[in-house]
Amino acid sequence: MSRFSVTILGCGSAFPTTRHQPSCQVVDFRGNLFMIDCGENAQTGMRRARLKYSRLGHIFITHLHGDHCFGLPGLLSTMALQGKGGVVTVYMPREGIDVFRPFIDYFCREMPFEVKFVPVDNKERQTVFENDSLVVESFPLYHRVPCVGYIFREKEKQRHLLGDMVRFYDIPVSRLSAIKAGEDYVTPDGTVIPNVRLTVDADPSASYAYCSDTVYDPRVAEAVKGVDVLYHEATYGDEFKIQARKRGHSTAREAAEIAAKAGVGRLVLGHFSKRYIDESPLLAEAREVFNNVSLANEGMRIEL
Amino acid sequence: MSRFSVTILGCGSAFPTTRHQPSCQVVDFRGNLFMIDCGENAQTGMRRARLKYSRLGHIFITHLHGDHCFGLPGLLSTMALQGKGGVVTVYMPREGIDVFRPFIDYFCREMPFEVKFVPVDNKERQTVFENDSLVVESFPLYHRVPCVGYIFREKEKQRHLLGDMVRFYDIPVSRLSAIKAGEDYVTPDGTVIPNVRLTVDADPSASYAYCSDTVYDPRVAEAVKGVDVLYHEATYGDEFKIQARKRGHSTAREAAEIAAKAGVGRLVLGHFSKRYIDESPLLAEAREVFNNVSLANEGMRIEL
Repeated sequence: MSRFSVTILGCGSAFPTTRHQPSCQVVDFRGNLFMIDCGENAQTGMRRARLKYSRLGHIFITHLHGDHCFGLPGLLSTMALQGKGGVVTVYMPREGIDVFRPFIDYFCREMPFEVKFVPVDNKERQTVFENDSLVVESFPLYHRVPCVGYIFREKEKQRHLLGDMVRFYDIPVSRLSAIKAGEDYVTPDGTVIPNVRLTVDADPSASYAYCSDTVYDPRVAEAVKGVDVLYHEATYGDEFKIQARKRGHSTAREAAEIAAKAGVGRLVLGHFSKRYIDESPLLAEAREVFNNVSLANEGMRIEL
Repeated sequence: MSRFSVTILGCGSAFPTTRHQPSCQVVDFRGNLFMIDCGENAQTGMRRARLKYSRLGHIFITHLHGDHCFGLPGLLSTMALQGKGGVVTVYMPREGIDVFRPFIDYFCREMPFEVKFVPVDNKERQTVFENDSLVVESFPLYHRVPCVGYIFREKEKQRHLLGDMVRFYDIPVSRLSAIKAGEDYVTPDGTVIPNVRLTVDADPSASYAYCSDTVYDPRVAEAVKGVDVLYHEATYGDEFKIQARKRGHSTAREAAEIAAKAGVGRLVLGHFSKRYIDESPLLAEAREVFNNVSLANEGMRIEL
C-alpha cells in the first residue's frame, strides 16, 4: 500500500446533486490524514472511505464558499463525540476565521481537542505546514473571492546505503545517517570515499497539487510546476468557456493547458458542474491537450 | 394524494452513520413545505425526496445541537443559487439566532430572498405560525439544552354544503361561505333554516406532533394530547434507560408511554442511536405499550 495517497470524498460543484458531493478530499501521508476542503457531508465521506477521524489533524480550506467549508462544524462535532484529543489545525483565508471561530466555539463546547485556526495568505506563496518528511505550501488562485491552492511535497528522501561498501570500509554506525544524507566518508587514515561509491539515489519524492476553484491563469501553471499529480477544477466544458471566465472557473481544456504548461505527471479533473450527467466530454476535451488525465469520482484513490 | 403529509429526510442521532441522516423532516401542507430540524445534508435529502426548494418557506429548529441544525447554511445557500425569492423564516431558540445570523449573513450575501429569524420560547407553549388553514405551535421539551417540540394542526375545515338544499331554498352565492362556516340561512320571508339541514359535517382536521430530543416527561404527553400522528425520539432501547435519562433522551418504550398517555392515533419512532444496526427491538419494546407504532426511515412518507 502506498504511503502517500489521496482519496476523493467530493468532486461536485456548488449545487448538490445525487451523483456528487461538494469539494472534499483527504491526503494520507504515512498514516497521517490531511483534509483539503470540507464541503457538507465530509464526515460521512470519511466514514464511507474508512478513514479514521483520529488520524486527521490538519484541514486546509481553499476559500470561503459554502461548498468548500460547510462540512467543518459537523466534522469537528463528530470528531469531538468520538473523543479525539490533541489539536486540529484549520487553515483558511483570514476573514473566515472571524466567521467560523464563534460558530465552532458555540457548538463545540467541552471539546476534547483544541481547534486552532491558521490564516492563509492568498497573495503570496507560503509554507503552511512542515514536518520531517512533508511540506504543505499554499499559493494564490484566481477566483471570485480570496482563494488558495495547496501543494503537498514529500521532502527529499535519504540515499540508499550499499551494504557491501559499508562493510568493506567498516563504516561506524554513527556516520551512516550523514552518508545517507549525501556526505562522503573519510577513513581513519584520511582517505576520502566519495558518497557515490557508498550509496545509490534516493527514491523520488512525490508531490500533489490541488487547484480549486480558479479561473484559467498561467501563474497557476508556474505555481504547480512539475508536480506528480495535479487535481484541477474543470467546472465546465468548452461550450461554457465565457461563463467559466465570468464565474471564476476553468474549463476542462483550460485545466489540461495548465497541466501541460506545468509539465505535471498526471491530471485529475474535478468540481464538475451539476449540468453534466456524464462528464466524458470534459475528459475528451482535456485529452486533446494533455494525455494523462482522468475524471475524479467519490471514493477514487490516487496513489503517489 | 394527501394534502397533508410528512416526509422523513433524517432519523438518525448525533453520530452519523451510513444508514441514517441527522434529524430533518418536511411537512407538506397543501403544497407548502415546512421543514422541522435541518441536520447536515437536508438539501440533498430534499432533492432525493423530490421536494422543491421553491415551496419551502418555514424552517422550525427544535434545539441547538449540530445534528438538528448544521444543514441550514448549505440549504439556504442552495436555495439562493436556485433563485428562490420572498422570505424564508427560521424559528429557533433565541441564542441560536446570535450564532447563525452572522454566519448566514457572511456566506449568503446577495441572496435573492430574505432570511428572517424568529426566536422560539422553550418555557411556554406558543403559536409560532398561523395562516387560514394551519397553526403551528411550539411547546417545551426537556433536553440538555433549551428545546421545543412542534405541533402542526390543520384548522377546523368548512362544512360541506348539500347541493340539493342550496338549490331548493335558492340560496344566493353571497351567503354560501357563511353557511359553510356553520351559520343558519334566513329566507327572504324570514324563515330560519337551521344549518344542519343545509350542510354535513366537515372532514376531520389532522394534527402532527414532533418531539425530538427529549427525556421522558409526562408533560410532553399533555402537550401532544390527541394528535393524529406523533413522531417521538427513541434514541435507545430498554437496556440503556439510565443512559437515556442522563443524556436527555428517551427509550422506545418511554416514547410509547407518551403516545399511550396522550391518546395519539399513531406513533412513529426516530432519532435512533448509531448502536442499532437493526431497530426492530426498539419497535418490539414500544409495541408492548402502544400498538400503532412504526420505525421512521429516510424517505418514509406519513399521510395525515
